[in-house]
Amino acid sequence: MNPLERKFYKLGVENAPGQKTNPETSSEKVSNLIVDFSHGDVDAFNPIPGTLEKFIEGVRFGAGQAYTEYKGKGEIRSNIANKISKFTSTTFNAESDMIITPGTQGALFLAMGSTISKGDKVAIIEPDYFANRKITEFFEGEIIPVQLDYINNDSSAGIDLTQLENAFQKGVKLFLFSNPNNPTGVIYSSSEISTIAELAQKYGVTVIVDQLYSRQIFDNREYNHLCAQNQIDFNNVITIMGPSKTESLSGYRLGVAFGAPKLIERMEKLQAIVSLRAGGYNQAVLNLWFSEPNGWLKKRIKQHQAIRDDLISRLKTTDGLFKVRTTEAGSYLFPEITNINGEINSFVETLRLQENIIITPGQEFGSQFTNSFRINFSQDHTTAVDAIDRIINLAKEYN
Amino acid sequence: MNPLERKFYKLGVENAPGQKTNPETSSEKVSNLIVDFSHGDVDAFNPIPGTLEKFIEGVRFGAGQAYTEYKGKGEIRSNIANKISKFTSTTFNAESDMIITPGTQGALFLAMGSTISKGDKVAIIEPDYFANRKITEFFEGEIIPVQLDYINNDSSAGIDLTQLENAFQKGVKLFLFSNPNNPTGVIYSSSEISTIAELAQKYGVTVIVDQLYSRQIFDNREYNHLCAQNQIDFNNVITIMGPSKTESLSGYRLGVAFGAPKLIERMEKLQAIVSLRAGGYNQAVLNLWFSEPNGWLKKRIKQHQAIRDDLISRLKTTDGLFKVRTTEAGSYLFPEITNINGEINSFVETLRLQENIIITPGQEFGSQFTNSFRINFSQDHTTAVDAIDRIINLAKEYN
Repeated sequence: MNPLERKFYKLGVENAPGQKTNPETSSEKVSNLIVDFSHGDVDAFNPIPGTLEKFIEGVRFGAGQAYTEYKGKGEIRSNIANKISKFTSTTFNAESDMIITPGTQGALFLAMGSTISKGDKVAIIEPDYFANRKITEFFEGEIIPVQLDYINNDSSAGIDLTQLENAFQKGVKLFLFSNPNNPTGVIYSSSEISTIAELAQKYGVTVIVDQLYSRQIFDNREYNHLCAQNQIDFNNVITIMGPSKTESLSGYRLGVAFGAPKLIERMEKLQAIVSLRAGGYNQAVLNLWFSEPNGWLKKRIKQHQAIRDDLISRLKTTDGLFKVRTTEAGSYLFPEITNINGEINSFVETLRLQENIIITPGQEFGSQFTNSFRINFSQDHTTAVDAIDRIINLAKEYN
Repeated sequence: MNPLERKFYKLGVENAPGQKTNPETSSEKVSNLIVDFSHGDVDAFNPIPGTLEKFIEGVRFGAGQAYTEYKGKGEIRSNIANKISKFTSTTFNAESDMIITPGTQGALFLAMGSTISKGDKVAIIEPDYFANRKITEFFEGEIIPVQLDYINNDSSAGIDLTQLENAFQKGVKLFLFSNPNNPTGVIYSSSEISTIAELAQKYGVTVIVDQLYSRQIFDNREYNHLCAQNQIDFNNVITIMGPSKTESLSGYRLGVAFGAPKLIERMEKLQAIVSLRAGGYNQAVLNLWFSEPNGWLKKRIKQHQAIRDDLISRLKTTDGLFKVRTTEAGSYLFPEITNINGEINSFVETLRLQENIIITPGQEFGSQFTNSFRINFSQDHTTAVDAIDRIINLAKEYN
């Protein structure tokens, strides 16, 4: 294999959300029989009311909306910068410190591409979002793993801070993590976030924090924004957010990144050669974000919390067949099937073929998670509960 | 400068289309006084009729349209593959040989990222689209320039085929060019295309051809698709097209690439970490492409040809102040101002400040084009003619 072949050999898409299409049904509305836990179901949880109307306004606005600056239309950046400023308790400049991107995936790629040079050490949590490792490898960074003992903690996410400091001492340039964590749905505690801020500051490490699910917090838990910590220089942090999950706007491909102006400037330059800008008309939809109807977000959280509770209670009444931490934010569950002996891929495949249920194998989030799987429970409530029963039944047969 | 700083130092966005916003007006509908020749005006030439309705259908379709495969929704790929097959007189498989991308810019980035490794030699035409050089540099390829003597030819584009073969002999891995050429609007002749195909085949060079403007051909000229040449292996060619220009769909960010299945597969893997997919609902709009109302394309071409004719006739009646080749396809003109002595940047800046007219300086297309500028004449006819008169007047003052 030449270097390019090696690079792409490591990039797989088969287990990614939306990739498992059934050839027979992919051209029609997906059959009700299929339950796709690899991503949320926007038919069960619709986009923010008025989304399409905002898009249409954008189209009617015409040329000024079709061709925006690469970092996004100024008026829209101002609008959301104000709202995100309040949400995160930070102050930043919409002109120099923020960019609108094609989804949070776009933000992540641009932020990492603006930070990682060949051979740079990048600290990455295990488990964490699969693209973190893939993008690091694409830019030829060196991954330094940091463990998250999510299963044996309940008052913190469980990051190994000693390991993190060791990694920083070894010369890590970039630390990248999602909060709430994807795939486990745990939130980093106040003390964890402030220690991360201190350590990053002490060792001069840049931090990219993916806060995609930070609005969907259950049980009124405390959530701390890294960018709001006094201990860390704003110029060393990029925060990523977007309306694709809780707000169900994934089909519009919108995200934002804000923070270090030097990195935002690079991200815009990179965006100019990657895809120019987030869809011009699509950007208009962002004006609704953080301006949802009264009670809309609260209701959405409540509905998800109810699904979570039903799934967790079922998984926990199986005589220890599953180990699972209760989701604290977002829509992910990351159960471990005890005694499955590393056969998660075969389990996932059998489940798909026998039950028409799609789940994401644990190895996507770290090679050691050979007994775990992720589900996105942003689904129709009844469907999700029925499907978890079928997952439990298959797991019982496996033992 | 460290390697990353150097990399981004070379990536500039200031002169790119849509980037020159006037701080006072950027938040409002752009004033009529501003004429922005850096890109086409979709208020003057609207998107294909029915575009918005197709988008709305996509939204109504729901989850199956929001979350498509990374390479795009199968049904839509089949639809456009059929039509592009006919248009280009080639046969290819919509499943393995095609990807839907976020604009043709997205296609270009993915195609080049799937082909260029550090140190690879990449042959690039001068002048040609500015991102070609920027993306090559981003992936640390080595640029081997090939001259296009567009000004002294009229029966061919004017590519220096000896220089191209020399470049291929030196070990070029990738040859990249736009046809029609951006910024000059010239079409490669039948003999040029067949020689490019022969040479690429002889030396095993991969070719990426950007055919963004290949539907907007003036004077019923002959146009040859590289992918349809018998001399070249389909597995060594990627063709890029999209509805952003002639069809005015830039605000929807849609493009396609088709060709070499091995490269398409890599492009999908790369798309999975870059931005997941072209906006799901946006993709639905592609069903209208190549299915426009009867006579729509013909009329659009005729209207652009009329603008071209008026601009050219004005530029040519200035006693040799301008040298310009007549656009054969697309909406670009690339006039050279004789005797401006390399001062194009100052001319561009003065024009913007004094006349509110935005044009793109020649150096964006190759460092030697210090007397040239590009305009996109897909504008309101009267506005374009009025603006060219003001450009001519300013050029006269400069002499």
